[in-house]
Amino acid sequence: MKIHVVKIGGNLINDQKFLDSSLEAFCQIKGNKVLIHGGGRKANIVSDQMGITKKFLQGRRITDKKTLDVVVMTYAGLINKNIVAKLQSYNCNALGLCGADGNCMKSYLRLKKTKTDIDYGYVGDLTNQSINISLIKLMMENHIVPVLCPITHNGKGDLFNTNADTIAAYIAISLKKYYEEVELHFCFEKKGVLRNIHDSGSYYPKIDFRLFQKIKKNHSISNGMVPKLENAFFALNNGVSKVSIGLPYYLINDVNNKTILCL
Amino acid sequence: MKIHVVKIGGNLINDQKFLDSSLEAFCQIKGNKVLIHGGGRKANIVSDQMGITKKFLQGRRITDKKTLDVVVMTYAGLINKNIVAKLQSYNCNALGLCGADGNCMKSYLRLKKTKTDIDYGYVGDLTNQSINISLIKLMMENHIVPVLCPITHNGKGDLFNTNADTIAAYIAISLKKYYEEVELHFCFEKKGVLRNIHDSGSYYPKIDFRLFQKIKKNHSISNGMVPKLENAFFALNNGVSKVSIGLPYYLINDVNNKTILCL
Repeated sequence: MKIHVVKIGGNLINDQKFLDSSLEAFCQIKGNKVLIHGGGRKANIVSDQMGITKKFLQGRRITDKKTLDVVVMTYAGLINKNIVAKLQSYNCNALGLCGADGNCMKSYLRLKKTKTDIDYGYVGDLTNQSINISLIKLMMENHIVPVLCPITHNGKGDLFNTNADTIAAYIAISLKKYYEEVELHFCFEKKGVLRNIHDSGSYYPKIDFRLFQKIKKNHSISNGMVPKLENAFFALNNGVSKVSIGLPYYLINDVNNKTILCL
Repeated sequence: MKIHVVKIGGNLINDQKFLDSSLEAFCQIKGNKVLIHGGGRKANIVSDQMGITKKFLQGRRITDKKTLDVVVMTYAGLINKNIVAKLQSYNCNALGLCGADGNCMKSYLRLKKTKTDIDYGYVGDLTNQSINISLIKLMMENHIVPVLCPITHNGKGDLFNTNADTIAAYIAISLKKYYEEVELHFCFEKKGVLRNIHDSGSYYPKIDFRLFQKIKKNHSISNGMVPKLENAFFALNNGVSKVSIGLPYYLINDVNNKTILCL
């Protein structure tokens, strides 16, 4: 049995037209599937509207208490519920979850290891034991499609902000327990990992681990792409059958326009 | 088989201490249970922070598009997920739902019947067919406790604001299909329906329909209490075994401090 794990992020979330067509493509995937969404830029808009100062360090969000409330509202509320409502309108029986729901994603607060480490605030990291895969399986058996937002919990009543790409990788890896074949698709508004960020056609059709190490070292890929690729290789290294990065369009038309990752 | 449907609202949601003790009381209910929460005042705070003008007519919120986003964020995100995380920390396997999740509460947009009717905006009304009770049953069978927020959907991709007391009544009525005994408890920060709003001890121990009609007519109960009592009698008239109004405390200590409704 096969399952598709699809992560949508970037501008696909911000732009309603992009989002709708991404969800339509997702609906057309036959068989078992799980959706994971990000939504960072919407959280910025809500923060601005609420007059909450956004803090970033080395391109990563610092989640203080007020920002945590904003991301919980935006990810688990606004984005997640609008996606679920839209999927329902396409006859896809979606059900939205944050990590606390059914204890499906348990994390622990990211700790500073040394004094000079950055304190990211209310950020939750996952482990191999984080995913309650039996809940996902129960949903599959009952033809319910899980839609996960990047909010996790620690089991002690606290919610945390967690990277959506990392969640997608852990979900895909955990599903290996029940499914022979797990495909992980990172969808965003570009055709794949670009050689030249200013040329949308310049995507790598294939990246193996050696090439990744090379382009990471010589900084020929954008900073934001590095953790995504690290999550991709983490998934491949842990038994996920196929990992790809690209437009949601290829989910239904399996054209070559995407980047395939391989070990 | 018996099931408890508990609705928490009013100041129980605004005050963290009240909320925590309400959730503790809820956890101590043995057997099958469903939680429904409101949260109107938190939505007001978020609206204010976002600089969105609140509109009320005859004490009822007008849900324009911006306000809809606020209530979705606040009810389905902030309040729902914090409640679920807290319940999980009490070893209660809670899972939060809005109406779009698993298509569990389908509503239709409240229409103006005459030109002079108030347009409440994005407000969804329920019918006898609204509740997808099979999802609730699936959760019960798997020891998952549903936590419902007052956001519904129309199946066409739209989310609506719906009264939490009304949702509680419809859920209780729908559960009659699977459970011999359904108890519905409206919990708030008072001991029951007060004779004198300034005297917290002046609650009615029992209200039958005749008394309700009388006190409604002579305006001896507050305006906000009338729709709650109407929902209570609607539930009783449709087979719900027991309906009560009062503090969450009595959920675990079945003292007389509450108002019991009867036909």
